Amino acid sequence: MREFDLIARIRARVRDGEGVVLGIGDDAAILTIDPGEQWVVSTDTLVSGVHFPLDTRPADVGYKALAVNLSDLAAMGAKPRFATLALSLPSVDSGFVEPLLEALIALGEAHGISLVGGDTTRGPLSLTITAIGSVPAGSALRRDCAQAGDAVYVSGALGDAAAALALRGVAIGADPAEKLARERLAQRLARPTPRVALGQALRGIAHACIDVSDGLTADLSHICVASGLAAVIDPLLLPASRALSTLVPDPDRRLQLQLGGDDYELCFTIAPEHESQLTSVASDQHLPLTRIGTLGPGSGVHLLGADGRLTLCTRGGYQHFA
Amino acid sequence: MREFDLIARIRARVRDGEGVVLGIGDDAAILTIDPGEQWVVSTDTLVSGVHFPLDTRPADVGYKALAVNLSDLAAMGAKPRFATLALSLPSVDSGFVEPLLEALIALGEAHGISLVGGDTTRGPLSLTITAIGSVPAGSALRRDCAQAGDAVYVSGALGDAAAALALRGVAIGADPAEKLARERLAQRLARPTPRVALGQALRGIAHACIDVSDGLTADLSHICVASGLAAVIDPLLLPASRALSTLVPDPDRRLQLQLGGDDYELCFTIAPEHESQLTSVASDQHLPLTRIGTLGPGSGVHLLGADGRLTLCTRGGYQHFA
Repeated sequence: MREFDLIARIRARVRDGEGVVLGIGDDAAILTIDPGEQWVVSTDTLVSGVHFPLDTRPADVGYKALAVNLSDLAAMGAKPRFATLALSLPSVDSGFVEPLLEALIALGEAHGISLVGGDTTRGPLSLTITAIGSVPAGSALRRDCAQAGDAVYVSGALGDAAAALALRGVAIGADPAEKLARERLAQRLARPTPRVALGQALRGIAHACIDVSDGLTADLSHICVASGLAAVIDPLLLPASRALSTLVPDPDRRLQLQLGGDDYELCFTIAPEHESQLTSVASDQHLPLTRIGTLGPGSGVHLLGADGRLTLCTRGGYQHFA
Repeated sequence: MREFDLIARIRARVRDGEGVVLGIGDDAAILTIDPGEQWVVSTDTLVSGVHFPLDTRPADVGYKALAVNLSDLAAMGAKPRFATLALSLPSVDSGFVEPLLEALIALGEAHGISLVGGDTTRGPLSLTITAIGSVPAGSALRRDCAQAGDAVYVSGALGDAAAALALRGVAIGADPAEKLARERLAQRLARPTPRVALGQALRGIAHACIDVSDGLTADLSHICVASGLAAVIDPLLLPASRALSTLVPDPDRRLQLQLGGDDYELCFTIAPEHESQLTSVASDQHLPLTRIGTLGPGSGVHLLGADGRLTLCTRGGYQHFA
């Protein structure tokens, strides 16, 4: 398959959504949007061997490359609209490319996103996606708008993806419950759910928001730095899935909850007087929203100990080039 | 240097332009644009060893990665507005990264483009840029709007970049004129000029437009396919620079003019009654615009021979995965 065949194949799969004046196939795409809206643009790259193991299933690669960008849009409270895909492949093996595209496009369609262009090149396997979303003007959820006194919340459960990575290569026992738990963790790593609907539901309620990609304390520290505040987190409140609780004992579990990346849950801050509104949001979203701490004056992320003492969290999450 | 240091360094360099509500540093950028305008989005990747030789100067890598995207916006007639950069590096060597960023940001500022976000990852050297431009609604230059009877034009000169590549490793003689010509060709390869102002000047005049990145006949064939037309090109009319004419004799020169990619000139089509307007455009742009052929019913790109016979052009330009 040659380059233009590959592009033609991608083009044939894609249905142009609302707002796409001209999609894949020209020098660039032409897009239009309603006035009164702002655009939210995110770019994320997945590199083989860095962001996913070399033996990752191609469908999971395609899914996750888009999912991490949708997660960034979710963390801004944006509605996904358009995406471009820069796909670098050592060779065009249709047994690899087809399921990759299938999964990527299916996830995009599920979220109303149109693939409008991109680039295909020969090179080491990597995918860079730029995703564009929209928000009513002025309503995006930023990192720098948290306020002292805000409660800190996190969606879903933490640490699952990190635990799945840590358990790779560890033999699975005969216990069916253990097997099921292992599968659940593996699924969380391979197919994280971007919290797109939650992000939009938090507009006008939450003050600041970020997605947990590098680890809770690392990502929350970005909100603290951007907003000029300190966070105090109670480690005992960090939500663990049943699968994580079944498979991973403390202290590993505690570390995975605090430091594990790749879960793509949302961490957000909210004024105490608005916390009551979260009950209906959680119910609508079928997703637990857990209060894990508070924000106040100062700097840094601090962990509340059983003895009431605070420990400044210095171990960061995942960093490239570290 | 760690990942966040690198991001902080990029952020410190960048001045947010008009329309940037929130630039680098959050999960995504927030952008705004006037109603009545459409957005034009292009994505291009440069991979080390594929799109540029491994020994390319870092400043040239940074320059060219943005230039090729600006060229795509130019080919749509768009005004550059915003860009995101996904930068993959084997390691963060500031002697490499600094000049790369410097050149990229300087080119962006020269064209009024704001770098609003992106991603930094560890991996083989590659840069993916998504550039966003704007056009008055309905005025973008597309590939599929050429008309039978249109004249085909090309800006500047062709074949320089291909000749520079072909001459790499060939010893330079003592003749100062030859030395100067070699430097001019090398500069065209390393620092192509995206025809941004020309693209905007062609709005409302040209019917279809494309940038010459893969080679004239390959790129013109995209216009023919998209518009359902045939092109007849006179090879003797293809514009050659003095440097190319000095250094490369026929038949190599003829092949480089027809097939050479990487020049980033614009190839466009225009109704004969509008050709007279091109004189002032060429004069304003200080850029020759050369009529090289015509469009008519049929398909394919045909070369006019000295004997008046037509030859269907089947040798394409550069293709990945070929």
